[in-house]
Amino acid sequence: MTTQQERHTALPLDLAPHTVAELGRQAVDLIVRQVAELPDEPASDYRDAGRLATLLRRPPAGEPGDFGTLIETFRQAAGQGVNTAGPGYLAYFPAGGLVSSALAELLAQVANRYTGVAQTAPALVAMEESVLTWMAGLFGLPSGAGGLITTGASAATLSAVVAARHDRLGPAFGDGTAYVTEHTHYSLAKAAQIAGLPAERIRTVPTTADLRMDVGEAARMIAEDRATGLRPFLLAGTAGSTSTGAVDPLADLVRLAREQGLWFHVDAAYGGGFQLTRRGRERLAGIEGADSITFDPHKSLFLPYGTGVLLAREPAVLRAAHAGGGRYLQDIHEVDGLPDYGHLGVELTREFRGLRLWLPLHLHGVRAFEEALDEKLDLAGVVHRELSADPRLEVPWQPDLSVVPFRLRGSDDANRRFLDRINATRRVYLSSTTLGGAFYLRLCVLSFRTRADHVEEALRVIRASR
Amino acid sequence: MTTQQERHTALPLDLAPHTVAELGRQAVDLIVRQVAELPDEPASDYRDAGRLATLLRRPPAGEPGDFGTLIETFRQAAGQGVNTAGPGYLAYFPAGGLVSSALAELLAQVANRYTGVAQTAPALVAMEESVLTWMAGLFGLPSGAGGLITTGASAATLSAVVAARHDRLGPAFGDGTAYVTEHTHYSLAKAAQIAGLPAERIRTVPTTADLRMDVGEAARMIAEDRATGLRPFLLAGTAGSTSTGAVDPLADLVRLAREQGLWFHVDAAYGGGFQLTRRGRERLAGIEGADSITFDPHKSLFLPYGTGVLLAREPAVLRAAHAGGGRYLQDIHEVDGLPDYGHLGVELTREFRGLRLWLPLHLHGVRAFEEALDEKLDLAGVVHRELSADPRLEVPWQPDLSVVPFRLRGSDDANRRFLDRINATRRVYLSSTTLGGAFYLRLCVLSFRTRADHVEEALRVIRASR
Repeated sequence: MTTQQERHTALPLDLAPHTVAELGRQAVDLIVRQVAELPDEPASDYRDAGRLATLLRRPPAGEPGDFGTLIETFRQAAGQGVNTAGPGYLAYFPAGGLVSSALAELLAQVANRYTGVAQTAPALVAMEESVLTWMAGLFGLPSGAGGLITTGASAATLSAVVAARHDRLGPAFGDGTAYVTEHTHYSLAKAAQIAGLPAERIRTVPTTADLRMDVGEAARMIAEDRATGLRPFLLAGTAGSTSTGAVDPLADLVRLAREQGLWFHVDAAYGGGFQLTRRGRERLAGIEGADSITFDPHKSLFLPYGTGVLLAREPAVLRAAHAGGGRYLQDIHEVDGLPDYGHLGVELTREFRGLRLWLPLHLHGVRAFEEALDEKLDLAGVVHRELSADPRLEVPWQPDLSVVPFRLRGSDDANRRFLDRINATRRVYLSSTTLGGAFYLRLCVLSFRTRADHVEEALRVIRASR
Repeated sequence: MTTQQERHTALPLDLAPHTVAELGRQAVDLIVRQVAELPDEPASDYRDAGRLATLLRRPPAGEPGDFGTLIETFRQAAGQGVNTAGPGYLAYFPAGGLVSSALAELLAQVANRYTGVAQTAPALVAMEESVLTWMAGLFGLPSGAGGLITTGASAATLSAVVAARHDRLGPAFGDGTAYVTEHTHYSLAKAAQIAGLPAERIRTVPTTADLRMDVGEAARMIAEDRATGLRPFLLAGTAGSTSTGAVDPLADLVRLAREQGLWFHVDAAYGGGFQLTRRGRERLAGIEGADSITFDPHKSLFLPYGTGVLLAREPAVLRAAHAGGGRYLQDIHEVDGLPDYGHLGVELTREFRGLRLWLPLHLHGVRAFEEALDEKLDLAGVVHRELSADPRLEVPWQPDLSVVPFRLRGSDDANRRFLDRINATRRVYLSSTTLGGAFYLRLCVLSFRTRADHVEEALRVIRASR
């Protein structure tokens, strides 16, 4: 009893500075180990998942626990499943998670400032705004463009769809139609569903042989819908599809959207970061004509999960679609032209997400990101060239960015087993997709931790698993 | 040039373990200072905000920066505005931000696991699920209830509204009506707006003299709407309103909703944590009948901003309203009955938010939270008693939880000046609201850092500012 009592006294909710120092030291020791162990950790491991999942389903107790024991339990639990932070994670969109960004989040959460309105923390909102303004410039959006930092592309896309619906259709929107392709990320259809748009109003435009939206078909479908009394309002282009990384013909889609008065949204959740590189800018040409852009810094800016961005040509439209108010907010006034982020998107109360972007960009410098992304483009080129040289494989598409789909010349089942053999080595982890009705493996190089030697190892594993 | 080159080399994106240790040490030194300085920091300070905001609007440079300089800049920027983490923050809903939770987030972000589906990180999803199951039990929801951790109440409420709309109205929902009061948080109306419900379908039910929803009036309005061919579908109760902390008559509202076939949502964003205490459970009686509950652990569980929860009696309804799929997800299979959180709410990619809840609950123990919340109820009682004893003040409402609205006997302008005088002392920070057409100051005790001595100081400041 005395021990419990003492431990309780030693761990009040309001930790004394010396306790913060001690727990902080233990936490830093753990992240140093996390980082040091990454290169040797398996890319996937489920051997202890069942036991841990059962253990971890216990509710918290009344009495305090031991910090060291608890964080060690977390370390073990994190080790089960897919090692998304490691260099061998080449599935979906790799996200290593910059440690500098995680340290920024620690500082931001201890300060715990409210950034739903500028008045509460004007200098922090200016910090966040500086990142957004820089990004808007990177994408070539005009002065005055802005947006907000969200938890990811889904939340960003939802606000883009709501803004487009509000701006182009008004309150009665059931006759509005939107245009996507089968390679558009399903977060767009999900956003439309949440926003109350009937599923049958989302039109799937055919793609050309290189899996990009067919602009002529889009124009034809828009005209056809208009002729039947529907109201086309949203055209969505993709700058780096999930299946193949292909970039839609953005410049042509901008022209079509302008001619037809449609809102042009670009999903650059994956591809956006490549805009820092010369090759990326060439491939994303036209994106500067977008009305809104979704971009995930937790993908191609290497940040931890939970970091998305919505950019809008005219942030006032976001505000018109999302703003509201309560009387308990009557003390809030606009400050220095800084935005009230709570009025631009879904969240009102929001944590200060700016530092997790601002700090890594200023600490490592923009060039470090540009060089890393150029390296990923090079590495994807190596993967494409090496796999293409293998007569037992089909590698039909030259990568626009850093995704390479490939398959064994054989049945879908043979390819499923091929993928299982690769992943069973636990040195790399790949995912799959369906293209033209066939099962494809896909390899995506995007983690800052994935360097030439890991790509060479992945190629060895793939060859050995054929 | 050489120096720049060296620094660049010294700070690659993939930090070496010894660099993680060094930056980690600097970050911990800063959070120790942040915590140590809190008691003496002003509750609000704008004196350097303009200069810093201008400085901080600069874009990131190509070359790397110095970590110590950058985090010191952040510390200064965070010092401008309202000190939401400090003990004198008694405005809106105080949120100190448990340091143990911030440390948990550091570990989670370095591990950077994907928890949109259970398969990627089953043991971590089990950890998250254990917290949600514990919470569902706390609110008396039946076995099988569950939900998801969101960034806050707005995102949680949006998913609740979308689920209610999908479940009770189906795809053609323009004739659906929802029932709130003027004291319902505006995030509900905002969620309805995002979900495409016409604004005129949100009915404002009158309140009784104690500012709670008038159940008889609600029943009357529902019947009236039904008679005109509309489809009542959503009744929203509040467990702790923002203006006064009042709890609606939840048990009566449950009965009405059940009789009428309406979805019953409870906004316990603020009040939910008090369910840990005997007094809280008495005041929130009836909440166990809710179809969905919004709760913000960043309010009454003292966590950092960015931590909300949506609980649903039947999580399958959340899934039906939000699930979708893309072919690149074809490898994903359900694991051990664990939920795929990406299919229950807005976000697909999501950071692992479980540790920021799991660690503080297990570290401090549930009793520490219960005791702290009991103390807040006691302290609000002290505030109410002391202010009520002052003949120059009007304090019309006994607090249900920990919000006390009060005003000078005088004009609204006199009360605005009263609030300005209080906040100008920089020892405490209060906010205001409008009740029955009159301007009220409001004081909310909710930070774990706000103890008896701070409340006494706040009372002295209020008396001296009359």
